Amino acid sequence: MAERHPQGTRVLRRINTAAVLAAVRDADGPVRLTELVELTGLTRPTVTQAVEELLDSGWLQQHAAEPSSLGGRPAVRVSLNGRAAPVLGLDVGPHTVTAGVADLAGEQLAVTRKPVRRKGTTHLLAVIDAVTEEALAAADVTAGRVAMVAIGTPGIVDGEKGRVLFAPSIPGWSSIDLVDHLRARFRCAVGVENDANLAALAVAHGRDGTLLAVQWGERLGAGVVIDGRLHRGAGEAGEIGFIRPPGHNPRDDDGRGPLERTIGAEAITALARAAGGARLDTAADAAEVFAAAADGDPAALDVVDRVARTFAEAVAPSVLVLSPHAIVISGGVARAGAVLLDAIRRHLEDLTLTPPALELSDLAEHTVLTGALRMALDRVWRQRLAT
Amino acid sequence: MAERHPQGTRVLRRINTAAVLAAVRDADGPVRLTELVELTGLTRPTVTQAVEELLDSGWLQQHAAEPSSLGGRPAVRVSLNGRAAPVLGLDVGPHTVTAGVADLAGEQLAVTRKPVRRKGTTHLLAVIDAVTEEALAAADVTAGRVAMVAIGTPGIVDGEKGRVLFAPSIPGWSSIDLVDHLRARFRCAVGVENDANLAALAVAHGRDGTLLAVQWGERLGAGVVIDGRLHRGAGEAGEIGFIRPPGHNPRDDDGRGPLERTIGAEAITALARAAGGARLDTAADAAEVFAAAADGDPAALDVVDRVARTFAEAVAPSVLVLSPHAIVISGGVARAGAVLLDAIRRHLEDLTLTPPALELSDLAEHTVLTGALRMALDRVWRQRLAT
Repeated sequence: MAERHPQGTRVLRRINTAAVLAAVRDADGPVRLTELVELTGLTRPTVTQAVEELLDSGWLQQHAAEPSSLGGRPAVRVSLNGRAAPVLGLDVGPHTVTAGVADLAGEQLAVTRKPVRRKGTTHLLAVIDAVTEEALAAADVTAGRVAMVAIGTPGIVDGEKGRVLFAPSIPGWSSIDLVDHLRARFRCAVGVENDANLAALAVAHGRDGTLLAVQWGERLGAGVVIDGRLHRGAGEAGEIGFIRPPGHNPRDDDGRGPLERTIGAEAITALARAAGGARLDTAADAAEVFAAAADGDPAALDVVDRVARTFAEAVAPSVLVLSPHAIVISGGVARAGAVLLDAIRRHLEDLTLTPPALELSDLAEHTVLTGALRMALDRVWRQRLAT
Repeated sequence: MAERHPQGTRVLRRINTAAVLAAVRDADGPVRLTELVELTGLTRPTVTQAVEELLDSGWLQQHAAEPSSLGGRPAVRVSLNGRAAPVLGLDVGPHTVTAGVADLAGEQLAVTRKPVRRKGTTHLLAVIDAVTEEALAAADVTAGRVAMVAIGTPGIVDGEKGRVLFAPSIPGWSSIDLVDHLRARFRCAVGVENDANLAALAVAHGRDGTLLAVQWGERLGAGVVIDGRLHRGAGEAGEIGFIRPPGHNPRDDDGRGPLERTIGAEAITALARAAGGARLDTAADAAEVFAAAADGDPAALDVVDRVARTFAEAVAPSVLVLSPHAIVISGGVARAGAVLLDAIRRHLEDLTLTPPALELSDLAEHTVLTGALRMALDRVWRQRLAT
């Protein structure tokens, strides 16, 4: 056998330690060393060395020894110490800021939320600081222990530089160096990402294939996730709100995109009022329009069909180019349920070759925050298990 | 230090051998063992063992020893033996079949081409066999040595099963098990891929980022390549020919997609004839329409602008969703040059947030074949260097 090079040995050791850590993480409760030998296929001395290293660095914790049934030495058991590297997630919107802390196992330790009462970036940054403080306190985690901070915000984000390039819904937001502001308190990496992209990551968690995850409320955005990884492209992938429907007048520019101006929640209510009829004249919001359609109201069904057709025409070209396995819709409009989904499906069948599966997200709340925590955890784990 | 497990040792050995092979491949000409020690950071005994293994398996070849300038032992030099694993590529079209053989370094050893004179799959398979035979003979490679066969064909292809699912331009084609037919002669893996996808791989070679590579002639297709890898999605990514332009009548169905029926090369000529005028009345093909536009003929410029607008409107939604770094156009229509490209760029600027770079491919001929050879080589190398 060849002489071994120190560099090769170090690599092998990191591979082994990572394998042991991954085995403990994926196990169901505390595990004994004997089990780890079985799970990893490594020798007992290698497992012992890796466990010692991981106990030293705090990633594993040791449990009270279980007396051996054979009367021998009590067996050492270890489990993941979720608090070794907790992560902080933030969902920064024009009206609310939500913060959450999760441990390494993905368990949410705390979630706090505060309204944004005044315009201006000074106030917004103060709200961010306050809600962060509260979440850390509630989770009993100090800023110095946080392993990664991930922030979701509307607008176009330069993920690499962590800058908000364009965010018409939060005036002044693109002039702030958010990463610099947070780095003053945290010693870890700080990531910024478009909120629809983070929602897409949350929706795509545990799914393979290509996914178009749509956020549909007042605003309309999407994220593309390919085999669990966010597709960013040149920087602004998923901006479906800016698709221009045929015949749309591009001059009514108010910062919103043409498609969200045409079929966002607000536009759906306006369409219904314009259509008129007993049920629609009094419809206060999109939810009531969908409820009327579900009850069989012909005018409401017609509005839903027009909204579905406009949506299907807007996404059909991307279905042909990207060929997603599924389109998953989250956000307020997702509460419309089957009446909207069926209509979109019918139009997509007409407009594409093989229409993708069409689903409503079952993530009720905090989708952006869940995505932010997901992104942070993915990075922390990827870094820790990288070999 | 921990006892080493045999499995870990085997992994380490494969990593080392792969590192040595990659270093030889990327070197400029034959290399000495001393150079390989420097290039890989491995010890001399490890390099020696890897080189012996690679000489045995035929992937490396040994060169005449160079006498050492210090009067010591002559230094052994090795280089890649490109013929250790040659690959075969095929471009199967309705009118022509082209075959090519490349060596491991990507050098094309032979390219042959034959017309398809009669309809029917029996004749087409006979042409495929004949052109393959000729290419192998010209390259002096036996079928048994071929490491991978990759075939490009129009239509929708199930890449995993290697079946053509839908190919209206070659009647009967989807009923043939092409992989089975070729496996009878070759002992290696046989891959089938959509021709526009292979052309995209060829165009994307050596480029990072997200690329939408458009093939634009009588037919209109595209391939999506993300960081050098073909994006397949659920199976039929890149089918831009089937995007339906606004106002298009879906009933004129002849197997071609709505967009290719509207702005394919044939449709461009028809549009020009309908527009009329001194230059356009006699335009024999799309090339003459573009030439007239380049000369400033107003009617021709108007036709080009309409074609460019229809193309831009069709791809704009995918630009917003996929955010490609570049759109590269190949095929007959690419010869139109700046007059078309400028018009498309103008419309895309209006329809998207940050328009991607827009380019014409500089691959003149054999784009699909080049892509087929590329795909085959990528797989052979990936398999060989996998650790």
